[in-house]
Amino acid sequence: MTATAAFDYPESAAVSPQELEARLRAIGDARYHHLHPFHDLLNAGSLDRNQVRAWALNRYYYQAMIPVKDATILSRMVDASLRRSWRQRIIDHDGEADDQGGIRRWIALTDGLGLDRAYVESTAGILPGTRFAVEAYVNFVRERTLLEAIASSLTEMFAPTIIAARVSGMLANYPFISKDTLRYFDKRLTQAPRDADFALDYVKQHAVTAEQQTAVMEALVFKCSVLWSQLDSLHYAYVSPGLIPPGAYDPKDWPE
Amino acid sequence: MTATAAFDYPESAAVSPQELEARLRAIGDARYHHLHPFHDLLNAGSLDRNQVRAWALNRYYYQAMIPVKDATILSRMVDASLRRSWRQRIIDHDGEADDQGGIRRWIALTDGLGLDRAYVESTAGILPGTRFAVEAYVNFVRERTLLEAIASSLTEMFAPTIIAARVSGMLANYPFISKDTLRYFDKRLTQAPRDADFALDYVKQHAVTAEQQTAVMEALVFKCSVLWSQLDSLHYAYVSPGLIPPGAYDPKDWPE
Repeated sequence: MTATAAFDYPESAAVSPQELEARLRAIGDARYHHLHPFHDLLNAGSLDRNQVRAWALNRYYYQAMIPVKDATILSRMVDASLRRSWRQRIIDHDGEADDQGGIRRWIALTDGLGLDRAYVESTAGILPGTRFAVEAYVNFVRERTLLEAIASSLTEMFAPTIIAARVSGMLANYPFISKDTLRYFDKRLTQAPRDADFALDYVKQHAVTAEQQTAVMEALVFKCSVLWSQLDSLHYAYVSPGLIPPGAYDPKDWPE
Repeated sequence: MTATAAFDYPESAAVSPQELEARLRAIGDARYHHLHPFHDLLNAGSLDRNQVRAWALNRYYYQAMIPVKDATILSRMVDASLRRSWRQRIIDHDGEADDQGGIRRWIALTDGLGLDRAYVESTAGILPGTRFAVEAYVNFVRERTLLEAIASSLTEMFAPTIIAARVSGMLANYPFISKDTLRYFDKRLTQAPRDADFALDYVKQHAVTAEQQTAVMEALVFKCSVLWSQLDSLHYAYVSPGLIPPGAYDPKDWPE
C-alpha cells in the first residue's frame, strides 16, 4: 500500500500577505461547511421540523460557547488596543441585558421552533459530537499561540454567503420559520465581515515567517473541521442513517 | 411542546457501594459501544478491508493517547501507593522498548492491514470526530475531580465481552486478519479486568455522598459517549451515508 496523497509539508519560504490571503480563501473554498450536504438539506427545505429543531438545539451550544472562546482569546492579549477591538465580539453575543445579544437571538429561533427553553439552555440533549467539537475549539484558542487563536476565527470570512443562502432558503421553504426567528443572522451579516476583516488584517500583518503562515493555515483548517464535524454529527443522527446516540434529543420524547 | 423525558436529576440520598456498582453496570448495559451498529458490522465481517483500515487507523489515535490520559491522572494523585498501581497502565501501553507495549501491538494490526506506518503515527488521516472525542477524554481527566477521572476509566468493566466477540468475529470473517495482528486484544483480556477492578474498588470506596455518586455515574456516561461518538464518526464517514470529511483517510488515495 503506497501513498499517492502526499502529506502537507510546510512551505519552506514565506509568501506575501496577499498570497497568504489567497491561500486562506482557498482553504475556505475547499473545507468550509457550505459544502456539507446537511447545509443544502437545511436551506432547500428538505428537513422536517424536528430535524431543524435538532440543528438549532445543537448549534445553540456553539453559539453559547463563542463568548467563552472570545474571552479566552481576550485573556491572552497583552495589548489594550487589541483587547478593545476583540471585546466587541463578546458584547455582541452577550448584549447589554438578558433580552439582548446573539445568544438571546438564537434562543428566539429555538423558541420559534417550539423547543423548551430550559432544555435548550441545559444543553442536556446535544450530541456528543457537538460538545466535543465545540470544546475542541475553546481548547484550541487556549493552548495554541495567539496568532493561531485569532486565525481560527477566520471562517467568518466565508459566513456572509452561507447566511444569505440560509435565510432566504429557510424563509422560503419552512412555514414554521419566520423572519423574526431568524434575526440572529441579520446581525451577523454586518458583524461577521467586520470581525473577519480585523482578524484577516491581524493575521496578514503578524504571520510573516513560513512557519507562522503554515500555523495560520492549519488553524483555519482546524476550525473548518470544527464546523464540518458538527454537521456530520447532525446528519448522522437525524438524517442518514438517522441513529440518535443514547441521551441525545429524540423527537419521540417530545410529542407536540 | 412539552417534555415527556424528564431530565436526570441527582438522587437526594446516597446509595450503598453495591447499589452504586449496579447502577454503573446498568449505564454500561445501556450506553457502552457494544450496542453500536458499527460494532456489529465489524465483528460480523460486513466491512471491507478499507473500512476495517479506517477503524484501525482512527482507533490508533485513541490507543496512542491512553497513556497521555493515564499520565494526566497520575499527575493528579498525591498518594504514592495509588500512583504505584496506576502507573502500570502506562507501562502496559508503552512497554519497555519500541517493539513492545499496547500501542506497538496496535501498530501490528495497522501493519497487518497494510496501512503505512508513518501515516498512521502522524494521525494526519483520522476523522475530526475521533480527534475531538479523544481530546475531550484527556481534558476531562485533567479538569474534573480525581474521583471522576478514575470513574471515567470504568468502561473497562465492559471490555472483555466486546473483545471476545471482536477477536472471534474478526478472525472468522476477515481473511486479511490473523491471530497475530490481533494480539493487542489478548493482553487486554487480562489487563482490562485488573484495571477495572482497581478503579471500581476505588470508586465504591470514595464515592460516598449522593453528589459524588452522581458525578461518578456521569463520568461513566461521558466516557461511554466518547467511545460511542467515535463509532458514529466512523460509521458516518465510511459506511452510511459514507461521506468522508475533507482531509480524512480516503481509500481512493491509497491504491493497492
